[in-house]
Amino acid sequence: MSSPIDLSELKALTFDVFGTVVDWRSSIIRELREFGISMGTVADWAGFADKWRAGYAPSMDKVRKGELPWTDIDSLHRMVLERLLDEYNIKGLGEEEKEHLNTAWHRLSPWPDSVRGLERIRSLYTVATLSNGNLSLLVELSKYGGLTWDCVLSSELAGHYKPDKEVYLTAAGLLGLSPGQMMMVASHTDDLEAAMDLGFATAYVLRPLEFGPGSINEEVEEMPFDIIAQDFNDLARKLGA
Amino acid sequence: MSSPIDLSELKALTFDVFGTVVDWRSSIIRELREFGISMGTVADWAGFADKWRAGYAPSMDKVRKGELPWTDIDSLHRMVLERLLDEYNIKGLGEEEKEHLNTAWHRLSPWPDSVRGLERIRSLYTVATLSNGNLSLLVELSKYGGLTWDCVLSSELAGHYKPDKEVYLTAAGLLGLSPGQMMMVASHTDDLEAAMDLGFATAYVLRPLEFGPGSINEEVEEMPFDIIAQDFNDLARKLGA
Repeated sequence: MSSPIDLSELKALTFDVFGTVVDWRSSIIRELREFGISMGTVADWAGFADKWRAGYAPSMDKVRKGELPWTDIDSLHRMVLERLLDEYNIKGLGEEEKEHLNTAWHRLSPWPDSVRGLERIRSLYTVATLSNGNLSLLVELSKYGGLTWDCVLSSELAGHYKPDKEVYLTAAGLLGLSPGQMMMVASHTDDLEAAMDLGFATAYVLRPLEFGPGSINEEVEEMPFDIIAQDFNDLARKLGA
Repeated sequence: MSSPIDLSELKALTFDVFGTVVDWRSSIIRELREFGISMGTVADWAGFADKWRAGYAPSMDKVRKGELPWTDIDSLHRMVLERLLDEYNIKGLGEEEKEHLNTAWHRLSPWPDSVRGLERIRSLYTVATLSNGNLSLLVELSKYGGLTWDCVLSSELAGHYKPDKEVYLTAAGLLGLSPGQMMMVASHTDDLEAAMDLGFATAYVLRPLEFGPGSINEEVEEMPFDIIAQDFNDLARKLGA
């Protein structure tokens, strides 16, 4: 790890949300199980959740490459859901049931340290989301989990998906800050690398359970990020909050 | 007043900010007095504040009519400030002093009922700003005053100023709601009338001191809005919060 970071310029932290702030996998599995019980359907819900999560990335990449017009995450989740319901041979759902299932992504539980860690960091800095989730999803998810932000920012406001540079620059612009006054926080290296290339400070947060127990942990020793944090309370401590 | 409003569809309230949530006039006069003391300058600071507030509307109207490209409130405030410094014969300010003075609009105190009233309303509904102030101004002002929102929305995100319809429709769109699920809250009738025309519910909040003591109060008896509230605690009560 590099020498202690100079925080004298830092004004605002932007947070990736899925995986970094909330435990999407357990939450989606929980929602799918509840759905299964109500429908009398048994399936590999963990596998369903993982495919759902993995499924929207290719569509998002098409948006990023301009092969698809802007399509929000709710719509991308819904496209993947339709495919998976077909694959799992789950039939006869009404529109309301499908929509309830799709908005499971609005009801994701925070990691145990997220609410308190964010509160601590917010006492010293501006904290904002910076997620590929659409704004309404982020607002509902934050209310659901008791997460308080100074500002909810989304790729939707840039009309681009992370890691496109427009997303990070739009966030800095809307906050009236230069990239050097910003820190991107994420549990994913590609997100942080893109922000770092633009001059953001970066904090990597370990979320070893994001993809479930038994996932391979990333090697943090060689990571070029300014802060490596065990969780949000550790991040708060390293920021002096 | 009309019969009790049906709140069964209501999901989110959007709030005008200057005058409705914060007491811009006392705050700006306070900042100008402090500036005057530090500069050894005496002037009619209340008059200066009123001219500053009144001064940006014509420029904003030019933006609304397409005669000026998009220009944010910080820039409009700065243009008026330069003119007033000239008019008041205040010379020799450096860029940093001018910028500090201009960002007085980021340091506006909430009305005494705003923080608690918003907390109460937020326990039942999504609450968001919907102001002509730029996003960074709203974020700083909210942090300064201890105001907590579910989401900070601004005319800036629509590229239009209120009362242009694009502002209200952009807010509803970003929250994933229809106008019928929204309520606009303001102490100004033109803002509410524009929102009402689009299908928003409306709440008028009395702020008799917005323009200083001795201003003429508007007649509320004939107002067509769904709720007339004495302050945000009264609004919370009328919303059942």
